[in-house]
Amino acid sequence: MSRKLNFNPGPAAMPLSVLETIKENIVDFHGIGMSLLETSHRSKDYESVQDRAVALLKELLAIPDGYKIVLLGGGATLQFAMVPLNYLREGASCDIALSGSWAQRAYEDAKKIGKVNLVFDGSASKFTTLPDSLSPTKGAAYLHLTSNETIGGVQWQAFPDTGSVPLVADMSSDLLSRPVPVEKFGLIYAGAQKNLGPAGVTVVVIRDDLVARSPDSLPVYLSYKTHVEHKSLYNTPPEFAVWAMMLVLEWVKEQGGAAALKEVNEKKAAALYGAIDESGGFYRCPVDRRYRSRMNVVWRLPSEELEGRFLGEATASGMVGLKGHRSVGGIRASIYNATSLSDAKALADFMRSFAAKNG
Amino acid sequence: MSRKLNFNPGPAAMPLSVLETIKENIVDFHGIGMSLLETSHRSKDYESVQDRAVALLKELLAIPDGYKIVLLGGGATLQFAMVPLNYLREGASCDIALSGSWAQRAYEDAKKIGKVNLVFDGSASKFTTLPDSLSPTKGAAYLHLTSNETIGGVQWQAFPDTGSVPLVADMSSDLLSRPVPVEKFGLIYAGAQKNLGPAGVTVVVIRDDLVARSPDSLPVYLSYKTHVEHKSLYNTPPEFAVWAMMLVLEWVKEQGGAAALKEVNEKKAAALYGAIDESGGFYRCPVDRRYRSRMNVVWRLPSEELEGRFLGEATASGMVGLKGHRSVGGIRASIYNATSLSDAKALADFMRSFAAKNG
Repeated sequence: MSRKLNFNPGPAAMPLSVLETIKENIVDFHGIGMSLLETSHRSKDYESVQDRAVALLKELLAIPDGYKIVLLGGGATLQFAMVPLNYLREGASCDIALSGSWAQRAYEDAKKIGKVNLVFDGSASKFTTLPDSLSPTKGAAYLHLTSNETIGGVQWQAFPDTGSVPLVADMSSDLLSRPVPVEKFGLIYAGAQKNLGPAGVTVVVIRDDLVARSPDSLPVYLSYKTHVEHKSLYNTPPEFAVWAMMLVLEWVKEQGGAAALKEVNEKKAAALYGAIDESGGFYRCPVDRRYRSRMNVVWRLPSEELEGRFLGEATASGMVGLKGHRSVGGIRASIYNATSLSDAKALADFMRSFAAKNG
Repeated sequence: MSRKLNFNPGPAAMPLSVLETIKENIVDFHGIGMSLLETSHRSKDYESVQDRAVALLKELLAIPDGYKIVLLGGGATLQFAMVPLNYLREGASCDIALSGSWAQRAYEDAKKIGKVNLVFDGSASKFTTLPDSLSPTKGAAYLHLTSNETIGGVQWQAFPDTGSVPLVADMSSDLLSRPVPVEKFGLIYAGAQKNLGPAGVTVVVIRDDLVARSPDSLPVYLSYKTHVEHKSLYNTPPEFAVWAMMLVLEWVKEQGGAAALKEVNEKKAAALYGAIDESGGFYRCPVDRRYRSRMNVVWRLPSEELEGRFLGEATASGMVGLKGHRSVGGIRASIYNATSLSDAKALADFMRSFAAKNG
């Protein structure tokens, strides 16, 4: 097979070795005489997979004691609902940093539950920058930020200290792409389908005091307490997605963990931003340099006609997923963990060659 | 490989041919140069998989016009929350038929949202029977029943007419194991991991008037309207689970559809109930004969010691999943669509032989 150079925005590239391990074991799971998909989630076969996934998350994210990890369905979109349902009590307010399309979704859901203070509003800059500092509102139930915006291509490079106000983050598109100071956060959530594995499972890292505050009045699935108390086995978990994530986490560990991946991810991003910045204005990235995303590199060409030609030639060269989000247009290269440095360099070379021909 | 005879209660046996198709295409999806897991859910490759899954559900369940099908995460457990959140308005009440452990879960969540009338309470009979008829409470928001109880082993064999009160059913453990008169229902939901595929996706069939009544005040993921309007693509769907379900649905079609499977499922159940009834009291099934489940056959032996020996010898014979639920003990054979008639007959033979030796 001729494998594509995969710049998909998510679901996105996965390590080939993980896909091959799945292939080898999907019919007969390590010789147990059936597929993992055919085993009870209360079997030792499945439980050891899930336990290993959770242990690897704890290790690779350097999660301190005093936090729990739960694995859920419904994607980050369900977390947009669960966070305010659990912590935004009637009459209370929360803070949200409105950094782009994904923060907007967290904002819309929170507004349905309680009052929201926008402690940052990036809409005036068309979501091309982030604040240098951020102060929580006194008494806010939590402050929510989105660590990376896949559409706008902005990414927090450091995180604010929010004191007694719990910091909550949607890290769906950059968790495990770099080390993160988990101890600064009350709750972190991430859909798996960018850096952690296939779509179908969401990771939630939650501090014990927030678990305790999860109200008993909520329907069972919507309470974080349920999933912590039952170790994510209150109901049937998405077994395949958890297994595939576990394999991706093993791969992350083999690569040297979050710090090593950060180094590679910065090189990948530098290759692409370099091609943009050296193009003499042929490629234009609208994002404030200080907050350029290392996961989603966005840029424009001088005309939509040239953008169309760029995409056509890239596709013909075996590169996929480069079309910008329909809401903003242009070009976007998503370079999550499983996209290799050589693929990113191949794209940068292609960009230089295209600019030389068409600039 | 020596493939087990799989009587797991769910996640459960899948057709071997489906697992083999997954194996063949998991690394390179039908020659596109990447895995389906690596493609955007807005790519034509994924969308054609999901469209086919939905079309097969419509065809195989004989869903009339005026209904929509959505595919969600979070399992049936999230539906226990979503049904009352969408339809049990403040001050309103709903009806629930309390048939066992699964109905109990729907009941607990509904009670957190509004008032619940128990139109049937099977607890007095230890959940071994079902009502011959059922009348909805006038003005109830809906009447909820659980078509099959996997732990107690009771199954509705016909469904009540509920007039203007929408009939809502959790069919997680028997959807597509037999034809169902969908037109009697306002809403049907089912986790996939018994008869439809692997864990990770939930099917919801919903009548248009209920879609329209889904309130806009709900967080986005929790509103059925969101998923109907966005054709289950508002957020990233669990791609693998949808693909695997699509393959299982193709297999169901090859088998002749729900009517043909019903016939086989009745033969499988008859083989096991026959072995019980002919055992002269050695095996005892506590369930009212009129409501014996064709999906989960439960029985006891004269002592727990004999039950332990039965399970040990069954395991040694390559049969798995026969231990009764920890809350009730005894033996349980789950015989969903993908468990073959020959496997059920092999178990019945084993039962006869064990009874002859130990009776």
